[in-house]
Amino acid sequence: MHSRFLDEFTVGEKFSSRKASLSEGQILDFAMMYDPQHMHIDHQAAESGPFGGIIASGFQTLSLSFRLFYDMGLVTQTNIIGVGMDEVRWTKPVYPKDALRVDAEVLEVRPSKSKPDRGTLRWQVSTRNHRDEIVMTAQLIMIVRRQTEA
Amino acid sequence: MHSRFLDEFTVGEKFSSRKASLSEGQILDFAMMYDPQHMHIDHQAAESGPFGGIIASGFQTLSLSFRLFYDMGLVTQTNIIGVGMDEVRWTKPVYPKDALRVDAEVLEVRPSKSKPDRGTLRWQVSTRNHRDEIVMTAQLIMIVRRQTEA
Repeated sequence: MHSRFLDEFTVGEKFSSRKASLSEGQILDFAMMYDPQHMHIDHQAAESGPFGGIIASGFQTLSLSFRLFYDMGLVTQTNIIGVGMDEVRWTKPVYPKDALRVDAEVLEVRPSKSKPDRGTLRWQVSTRNHRDEIVMTAQLIMIVRRQTEA
Repeated sequence: MHSRFLDEFTVGEKFSSRKASLSEGQILDFAMMYDPQHMHIDHQAAESGPFGGIIASGFQTLSLSFRLFYDMGLVTQTNIIGVGMDEVRWTKPVYPKDALRVDAEVLEVRPSKSKPDRGTLRWQVSTRNHRDEIVMTAQLIMIVRRQTEA
């Protein structure tokens, strides 16, 4: 799929990503660096805890979700920078080898008033597991190029 | 610092973390896995771009900020699970070796109505670089244990 300029997106458009999973090793490695809580790094504690086993850090689920979103190629050449996120929610645990995919819907397309070459693009992102349960939702906000006259 | 139960936090209380930085290698490794945009992985493109060099993925800045927050030890034994985040904003680029620290302020302490052993704790987190510039802000929302009678 070719990269799009801001004005080529329409509010309500929907896209779906490929699937990807995290191995237990990837979950442990990420957690040791960024989120060393027992449910992410300690087998014994995780197994006797509320989730029944090791689960991925929400920050890793979020990062992988961004990778799946990005790999759709919608803004590969047109994204200028990420602004932020609103309403990030971790709704279900993510276990090793869960096959995750991302559905993304265009929420807002807003040309900049001060810079005619760019504008704000807001996405509603939902990450689902292989049981079609939503494990994470978030709004992604980015600054994307507009097509300018040559 | 000992871990605290929900009711031991007061709205408006402030805490500051230790400092930590990301090496260029760590920035490239994270970006190759989760956010392979040119400003995070391509020296030449990054140097001729708006930031003048490689910058960290916002998802890595966020993950490191959580680690710095977590290492303050405030909720090590009492955090049950992360709920999500609101109003995440990446306000300045993060370069290799920038020394980052996190300031966290308690925004909300709300006992659960249905589960007397827990409640919601909401934090305003600000991540600053060594020039005291805010590079990221976010609200972190977590479920934390309440002290229950033995």
